[in-house]
Amino acid sequence: MKWQELLEEVWRANVELPVRGLVLGTWGNASGIDRATGKIAIKPSGISFGGLSPSDLATVDLDGNQAEGSRKPSTDTPTHLALYKAWPAVGGIVHTHSHYATAWAQSRRPIPCFGTTHADHFHGPVPVTDDCDTGERYEAATGEAIIACIGRQDPLEMPAALVAGHGAFAWGATPTEALENATVLEEVARMALHTLMLNPSAKPISQELLDRHFRRKHGPGAYYGQKD
Amino acid sequence: MKWQELLEEVWRANVELPVRGLVLGTWGNASGIDRATGKIAIKPSGISFGGLSPSDLATVDLDGNQAEGSRKPSTDTPTHLALYKAWPAVGGIVHTHSHYATAWAQSRRPIPCFGTTHADHFHGPVPVTDDCDTGERYEAATGEAIIACIGRQDPLEMPAALVAGHGAFAWGATPTEALENATVLEEVARMALHTLMLNPSAKPISQELLDRHFRRKHGPGAYYGQKD
Amino acid sequence: MKWQELLEEVWRANVELPVRGLVLGTWGNASGIDRATGKIAIKPSGISFGGLSPSDLATVDLDGNQAEGSRKPSTDTPTHLALYKAWPAVGGIVHTHSHYATAWAQSRRPIPCFGTTHADHFHGPVPVTDDCDTGERYEAATGEAIIACIGRQDPLEMPAALVAGHGAFAWGATPTEALENATVLEEVARMALHTLMLNPSAKPISQELLDRHFRRKHGPGAYYGQKD
Amino acid sequence: MKWQELLEEVWRANVELPVRGLVLGTWGNASGIDRATGKIAIKPSGISFGGLSPSDLATVDLDGNQAEGSRKPSTDTPTHLALYKAWPAVGGIVHTHSHYATAWAQSRRPIPCFGTTHADHFHGPVPVTDDCDTGERYEAATGEAIIACIGRQDPLEMPAALVAGHGAFAWGATPTEALENATVLEEVARMALHTLMLNPSAKPISQELLDRHFRRKHGPGAYYGQKD
Repeated sequence: MKWQELLEEVWRANVELPVRGLVLGTWGNASGIDRATGKIAIKPSGISFGGLSPSDLATVDLDGNQAEGSRKPSTDTPTHLALYKAWPAVGGIVHTHSHYATAWAQSRRPIPCFGTTHADHFHGPVPVTDDCDTGERYEAATGEAIIACIGRQDPLEMPAALVAGHGAFAWGATPTEALENATVLEEVARMALHTLMLNPSAKPISQELLDRHFRRKHGPGAYYGQKD
Repeated sequence: MKWQELLEEVWRANVELPVRGLVLGTWGNASGIDRATGKIAIKPSGISFGGLSPSDLATVDLDGNQAEGSRKPSTDTPTHLALYKAWPAVGGIVHTHSHYATAWAQSRRPIPCFGTTHADHFHGPVPVTDDCDTGERYEAATGEAIIACIGRQDPLEMPAALVAGHGAFAWGATPTEALENATVLEEVARMALHTLMLNPSAKPISQELLDRHFRRKHGPGAYYGQKD
Repeated sequence: MKWQELLEEVWRANVELPVRGLVLGTWGNASGIDRATGKIAIKPSGISFGGLSPSDLATVDLDGNQAEGSRKPSTDTPTHLALYKAWPAVGGIVHTHSHYATAWAQSRRPIPCFGTTHADHFHGPVPVTDDCDTGERYEAATGEAIIACIGRQDPLEMPAALVAGHGAFAWGATPTEALENATVLEEVARMALHTLMLNPSAKPISQELLDRHFRRKHGPGAYYGQKD
Repeated sequence: MKWQELLEEVWRANVELPVRGLVLGTWGNASGIDRATGKIAIKPSGISFGGLSPSDLATVDLDGNQAEGSRKPSTDTPTHLALYKAWPAVGGIVHTHSHYATAWAQSRRPIPCFGTTHADHFHGPVPVTDDCDTGERYEAATGEAIIACIGRQDPLEMPAALVAGHGAFAWGATPTEALENATVLEEVARMALHTLMLNPSAKPISQELLDRHFRRKHGPGAYYGQKD
């Protein structure tokens, strides 16, 4: 993928965040990485989504050095970098304080897999981090806490995590997939809250149904969509 | 009804789903059947609602053989087929993961008839299926679970069911009626949740009031609307 | 007020109902009365709000006889008539199944006055009817149940009631005031639900604060707005 | 700042209130003060936001005397005046009955700091007043109750309070900052409610995380945004 195309895709993922109701004000950010060059495009810090253009994005390398342009990258950049370094298959990351996902993050509960809407995108409960270190390395430590709570799962099979007392991170093979996962995470978080209100002892779906739905859309046996 | 008119009606029912807030992304689908020929028009799998045109719909017969065109039908097609085979009076079916109906489906509770909004459209509590078989015949088994939970009720008097851990199916004499029932189901599901939050031991309305309201709109004694 | 002006006002109150999110589909209706002639304009039964024009309204007298035109009036007309007969100061009535008001009606709980938003419009808790008779006189009996639950209060000081297991009626000196009261009722119902979720033993505001706020806007000592 | 610019800013803060879903009808108001002259611009009482222009604003001095124009100021003006007199650093005030903030005010509970969304704007729990005196000096007494519940905190570090049984007040160095704080308060109030629904014994974030986030955006060590 050409760098210019990646910039366009990261830009689009950023401006979609308020359109989809996932951010308020300047909260949240999306990034994407060009694995060939190791360059990362990310939302600049504290800039409103409204007037953003692709050339306004900040560019950094995997060590966080500003690669191009004059805009300061998002303060959350060290978190993005930690995830890109840990997970070579990940090509895009989205961070939001989307309403219901954040309520789960604040309640410090993982989101159980109560239904097939969840199972179509997340192969199990969406985990929540432990408390993050709040010192100098706060943002990098947040990335490490996310990596720890994903553990040995394939990050493309569990493409989101809740940061305790903070908000949500979602990712995917591309920035567009990361946006899609952040969007579904919010709806799944809202559905799970209302499920618990109707039945506080609601049980997750069976492992068989979870696998059936996740595999309808992902992996070699997928049979959803127009592909053969 | 001409086939072309049915295609238009099925297309309209599909594109109304996101307009009415009943689906997110490519989730959900609507279908309709021409009983004279046994041909069924249904949303193609994994296609976004945005750019859909009537000629994009997939066409299958009651055994699921692709009758026309090259689009693969929705993966949920075997569920639709099972319902059309069981219920000759049904002419349209809508499947959604609409938010509140899905929360009830995930909580595995039938929706009690708490008021006349519900009684105007559903002649009793909206049932929830048992767990469905998740093997090879998963989607057909889902249809059978729906048929089992409707039991001996007239499917046009109970034109919806919740699939446990999954979502909602609604139907009607036409695709337009199915869409209407899916729309009301979502509002009724939301109202019933909030009713229980105000009064966890809320009681359903009386059988007399249920009958009064359902019969105002349905059957020979109906006196709602401009018909004589 | 000229009849034509009343028709316009009743028409506007009707078409505002879906704009304000108070009705779904063809549910709900607004009416107004010309006290000089005893003629009442009301939404026709089962007609969508979208294409309604002032000349589409149905016209009846206080005994329910169709006075003009060919449209059948709303099936809820006998409820409106009962209220107009009982309360000469009332000039407009709005009936909705608005979401939160209906949840309270379904839970059969009066809405306590938890704050000044409520007190600005309703001089005490909004009452809920007993179960209504469901026989031949169902709609008229609904009106009588509303009148009974308002009791000796001034209907312009308590301009709304919840009908158990059904929905909301609001009224005022004019159709516009009735619409305003139906709008505020919905917001007050929603606020009160969330108040109880935060504090199940929340207490109503004091009688002094209730009187202070209601009297800021109503009666001889009112000092809200630009009037002197 | 020129008076005309302040008028424009106060006007914009007022008309943004319904756009952001923070007010219904004519509820709520925004004001700003020119500290050089002591003149205050505020929304006129009972006027709809829709047709408001900057020249429609009412103007008063710190003693509440009408300084210019013929419009009566908001009935809540004495509350605004009390805050401006107590807090010289405050340049703008916004009052709303925004939904979730008001539910907390009605429940008489302070909003705990459950996450970084909250900590980015409010340096601790958002307090709730005691009951206010409801006599002749009602609106001024409301201001005194707000000042009492802020106590010795810097009002720019805790730029909002809930008035028991009433609604929310937010403030800032400018009317625009006050609007921003009122907007975030509503989202924080909503998130905190849903957090408690998921975990009734949810704990506030640590003092360290609270300080880390508040200081990322405020004060000499701030590193959020494009400033150096």
